[in-house]
Amino acid sequence: MTKVLITGAAGMVGAKLVARLTKDGAVAGKPIAAMTLVDMVAPSAGPPGLRFARNDRCQMEDHVRPDVIFHLAAIVSSEAEADFEKGYRVNLDGTRYLLDAIRKVGDGYKPRLVFTSSIAVFGAPFPEAIPDEFFETPLTSYGTQKAIDELLLADYTRRGFLDGVGIRLPTICVRPGKPNKAASGFFSGIIREPLAGHEAILPVADDVRHWHASPRSAVGFLLHAVGLDGATLGARRSLTMPGVAATVGEQIAALARVAGEAVTKRIRREPDATIQRIVAGWPRTFDPQRATALGFRAENTFEEIIRIHIADELGGTWVH
Amino acid sequence: MTKVLITGAAGMVGAKLVARLTKDGAVAGKPIAAMTLVDMVAPSAGPPGLRFARNDRCQMEDHVRPDVIFHLAAIVSSEAEADFEKGYRVNLDGTRYLLDAIRKVGDGYKPRLVFTSSIAVFGAPFPEAIPDEFFETPLTSYGTQKAIDELLLADYTRRGFLDGVGIRLPTICVRPGKPNKAASGFFSGIIREPLAGHEAILPVADDVRHWHASPRSAVGFLLHAVGLDGATLGARRSLTMPGVAATVGEQIAALARVAGEAVTKRIRREPDATIQRIVAGWPRTFDPQRATALGFRAENTFEEIIRIHIADELGGTWVH
Repeated sequence: MTKVLITGAAGMVGAKLVARLTKDGAVAGKPIAAMTLVDMVAPSAGPPGLRFARNDRCQMEDHVRPDVIFHLAAIVSSEAEADFEKGYRVNLDGTRYLLDAIRKVGDGYKPRLVFTSSIAVFGAPFPEAIPDEFFETPLTSYGTQKAIDELLLADYTRRGFLDGVGIRLPTICVRPGKPNKAASGFFSGIIREPLAGHEAILPVADDVRHWHASPRSAVGFLLHAVGLDGATLGARRSLTMPGVAATVGEQIAALARVAGEAVTKRIRREPDATIQRIVAGWPRTFDPQRATALGFRAENTFEEIIRIHIADELGGTWVH
Repeated sequence: MTKVLITGAAGMVGAKLVARLTKDGAVAGKPIAAMTLVDMVAPSAGPPGLRFARNDRCQMEDHVRPDVIFHLAAIVSSEAEADFEKGYRVNLDGTRYLLDAIRKVGDGYKPRLVFTSSIAVFGAPFPEAIPDEFFETPLTSYGTQKAIDELLLADYTRRGFLDGVGIRLPTICVRPGKPNKAASGFFSGIIREPLAGHEAILPVADDVRHWHASPRSAVGFLLHAVGLDGATLGARRSLTMPGVAATVGEQIAALARVAGEAVTKRIRREPDATIQRIVAGWPRTFDPQRATALGFRAENTFEEIIRIHIADELGGTWVH
């Protein structure tokens, strides 16, 4: 029987993870005995009888001691950039507080901790495909905080305080919900909004290439990470996740193939120099050999990503 | 007129830097108006009238506002490994406290901050020569703390709070003074002790290769870093310094050439499995193209390193 703790449980990925664990009733082949969710806001869904703690830090002594911890809690890139102190407080100190709470239990307790890092730990200029041994030179405070968290995760694991695995998520696409202010929002917007019958703004050129995986893959990465044998990871505890490298033009072509040419007419090109400059510093393609060898799997094509959105979010159909 | 602050001013490199600045009376071509030294112990030497603050953190409000900051303060690798909390308190929180003190001045104050990082940010397995874009996967808490400090330095610089340059020092050789407990101590010991007429223990095999630079070079790196144009660094603020890649066998052969075969007979081979295991995880050779292009210079041969030790520490002679 496994006890699970999820921080950031009310976020987009967190909520999908909770739904999946609730459905499966098990994680890494073991039945779930208890699930504790932590977030700043109450999760919108969850299994009956779960515990919820409204907290931006996780005090281990307050909780049933979890065997598996999914540490997803973070403020997003734009907020960390807008509020310097809050970004460091939540994304760095919050993680360190959690790691220290585990360390201080000190009686041999050593949970598997799965941490969601981000490809924002990398900063341009890049090689054409970023190899697993490429250095982390983030160009945002959010990326800096995630890179620091990766270092802490590795050191706390090496010292035997916990058993950490960090997974660097691709940009999650198609992100459900309303359009948001994130500079990356258009990658999802140009698929989600036309399928819903709405207009979408495309602020960058069609040849912009980026690295994507579906929300379903993100949950799959988290669950696969729980079951990994730590010995196979060695000292290098964080992994770039596989994804689909697609240009905006390829995204739109895939949308036409899946949903018809007419749907793509709802995309309006409106170049935005600020967003173009931000996006120019982002990774385009990775060569995630380690994660692939360890069995992590994403979609193979952008069409698959669109079909998953239609299946998981739109009940199998769209506005023609 | 430049005001200078040095943290860790009583350390080996710090003391040599203070001596050099005192002799030069200037830094990066500008006369020094004031020099403030910070350390846990009082510096053994320094210019008349300097200020000394006994502190493991640097409170900016206590000091004349420096134009140039050399942030050398740290506890060493073995101590950070032995005392987990102290290592993070001094090597991570101490640096962050300093960076935040600068940030909080908040009136456009933006000092050049030169931070001494270490090749301990890298961890095996390595390519034969480590390129500038190799990732940081430290295998010690000390290396983790230095890698985190590099990330903070880059982000605080990017945000415009300060103008940081991080320099990853090679192993400093020949380290003057008494033999210490550091696992790396023998690299210096096998040169320093025989030249002083004493026996030295060599715990590893002759084919162990490592990356060295003299204390004089370390001071040279610090002074060169002060004068760098930040724009040429871009977002990547930390640099691996040049050095001499030498095997232990090459070190001993250089000693024979400089000081005579008889001196090398004072080296006693006494294999130590623990030290061998630690050293096996250390970098051997780098390809520091960026630092070299930016004008950083170390010695060209290990013989030079020995001659500098004889000139700077032994008054030009040794025990034959």
